[in-house]
Amino acid sequence: VSTSFEAPHGTLVIIGGHEDKERDCVILREIAALIGNGRLVVTAVASAHPEELFQSYKQVFGRLGIGDVVELSVGKRAEGLDQARQKVLDGAAGIFFTGGDQLRITSQVGDTPMLAHINQLLEHGGVIAGTSAGASAIGEAMLVQGGNDQSHRIGNFRVAPGLGLLHGVMIDQHFAERGRIGRLLGAIALNPRLLGIGIDEDTAIIARGLGFRVIGSGAVYVVDGSRISASNIAEQEERKTLSLFDVTLHVLSTGDTFDLAKRRPAGES
Amino acid sequence: VSTSFEAPHGTLVIIGGHEDKERDCVILREIAALIGNGRLVVTAVASAHPEELFQSYKQVFGRLGIGDVVELSVGKRAEGLDQARQKVLDGAAGIFFTGGDQLRITSQVGDTPMLAHINQLLEHGGVIAGTSAGASAIGEAMLVQGGNDQSHRIGNFRVAPGLGLLHGVMIDQHFAERGRIGRLLGAIALNPRLLGIGIDEDTAIIARGLGFRVIGSGAVYVVDGSRISASNIAEQEERKTLSLFDVTLHVLSTGDTFDLAKRRPAGES
Repeated sequence: VSTSFEAPHGTLVIIGGHEDKERDCVILREIAALIGNGRLVVTAVASAHPEELFQSYKQVFGRLGIGDVVELSVGKRAEGLDQARQKVLDGAAGIFFTGGDQLRITSQVGDTPMLAHINQLLEHGGVIAGTSAGASAIGEAMLVQGGNDQSHRIGNFRVAPGLGLLHGVMIDQHFAERGRIGRLLGAIALNPRLLGIGIDEDTAIIARGLGFRVIGSGAVYVVDGSRISASNIAEQEERKTLSLFDVTLHVLSTGDTFDLAKRRPAGES
Repeated sequence: VSTSFEAPHGTLVIIGGHEDKERDCVILREIAALIGNGRLVVTAVASAHPEELFQSYKQVFGRLGIGDVVELSVGKRAEGLDQARQKVLDGAAGIFFTGGDQLRITSQVGDTPMLAHINQLLEHGGVIAGTSAGASAIGEAMLVQGGNDQSHRIGNFRVAPGLGLLHGVMIDQHFAERGRIGRLLGAIALNPRLLGIGIDEDTAIIARGLGFRVIGSGAVYVVDGSRISASNIAEQEERKTLSLFDVTLHVLSTGDTFDLAKRRPAGES
C-alpha cells in the first residue's frame, strides 16, 4: 500500500448518481440525518440548469426534514472567487454538489475562497456530499471523458485533477450502468498510487476518517492497482487496447466497509 | 490454484462475437490458416436462421481461401443423435460454431455422437472454433442469462453446463460491449474453481495445450477467484447486490498470452 490518506474530520457522502428521490430515499435520508437541524447548502455549479436542480433538491430535502436548504450559485469562476457570495457557508452543516459536468466544478471552484470554505467545513466536522459529477469532483483525480461499453483503448479517456476533498482516490459514477470498468482500469493503470472507486447509481459511500461504508441499492467497485505486474498504458499508440495484469478488484454492497489506509474491505458489521 | 486443466491436442479459437468479416479479418484469417487445405464444417445449431448464417460464413471463409466449407445442420436433438449425419466430420480439419443461443447448442449436441466426433477431432489435432454463443458453449460452464449494465444481483443470472471442450473455464462474450463484468463476477463467485474469461467483440483467444493467446481488436478479461476472501453469493435473497472481495483481474490484449494451469498472464513474446 503506497498511498497515504489524509483523514477528513467531517463526513463525505459520495453518490454514484440517480439516487432515489421518490421511495425510501436511503441515501438522501442519510444526508438529512447528518445535517439534522443545520443548514444544507446546495450548489448546482456542475449544471447548465442550476435553478431547476436546486429547486428539486430543496423540495426533496425539505420533505426529508431539512428546514434550511439554501442555494450557492456559481455561474462562473468570478463568483467562486467572490468572498461575499460564500457567506451562506458560514455556520452551514454541509454542502451538496449536484450532477452535471465535473469540469465545471473544478474549473470554477478549484483554488477559490469557496473551496477554502468547503475545506474548513470538512475540517470542522461538516458534511460534503456530491452526486454524479459532484461525486467525481470530490476525489484527488477524476475521469472527465472516456468511451463506455468498450474496452479501454490507451488514448480514449481523459483524467483531470479533482477538488482533492478525499485524497488518494479517483471516483467514477453511473458505474455498472454505463459500463465504466474499462475506463477506470485504464485510469488506475496511469498511476496505481490512486485507488479507483466506481459507484453505481442509487449507491453511495459514506467516508469518515480513513474508512468508508456502502449504502444504497447497487455496488461499489474498488480497483486496487498495488499488485499490478505489467501494463502497456505508457505506450504511445492511442488506439491500442489496454493490457493490465494483476489488478485486485473488490465488489462491495450495502453494509460493507473499506479501510482506505490498508486497502482492505470488510463485511457487514 | 485449484483447477487441473486437461490439455486438448488440437486448437480452440474462441471468439467474443461480431468478428470482422469485411476488412483485415484477423480472426477468421487465423482460422483459415489453421484449416489450410482441409475441410471446415460450419454448424449454425445455435441459430434460428442457420441457412443464412452458413451461407455468409461459407462466403467469407471461401474468400479467405478455404475451398471445402460444408454445413452440418442440427435442427433438433434427433439430428445430433443421428450418426449418419455426422459423416461430414470424418476427416474434417475443423468445425465452426456460429452465434445464436448457447442453450440450443448444449441441449441439442450435449452427449451425442456429434459431440463425440468433435472431441475426437480435437483429440487428433483439429480446430474447434466458436463465436458468441458458440464461444460460450466451448467452456465447462456458461452464462445463459443475466442483466447487462447493472451490478449483479445474486439471483439475476443463470449458469448451465457447457460442452466442456475447454475444461475449468467459464467463457462470456460481447463482454465490454454488453457490460458483462458483473454477471461474470457473480458466476465465478459461485465456484472459483472455474476461471472466468470475458471476451470482447472482434477478439479471440487461441487455446492450445494449457495456454492461450489473444488476437483481435478488443480485450480479454480474466477473472481469477482463487484469492476471493469473502462473498455473499450463497445467501438466499435474490435481489441482494453481490459482495465479492479480492478478485484478481487481468486485462489482456492482442499478443498477450495466458497460462491456464498457473493462472498467469504474460506479455507479448
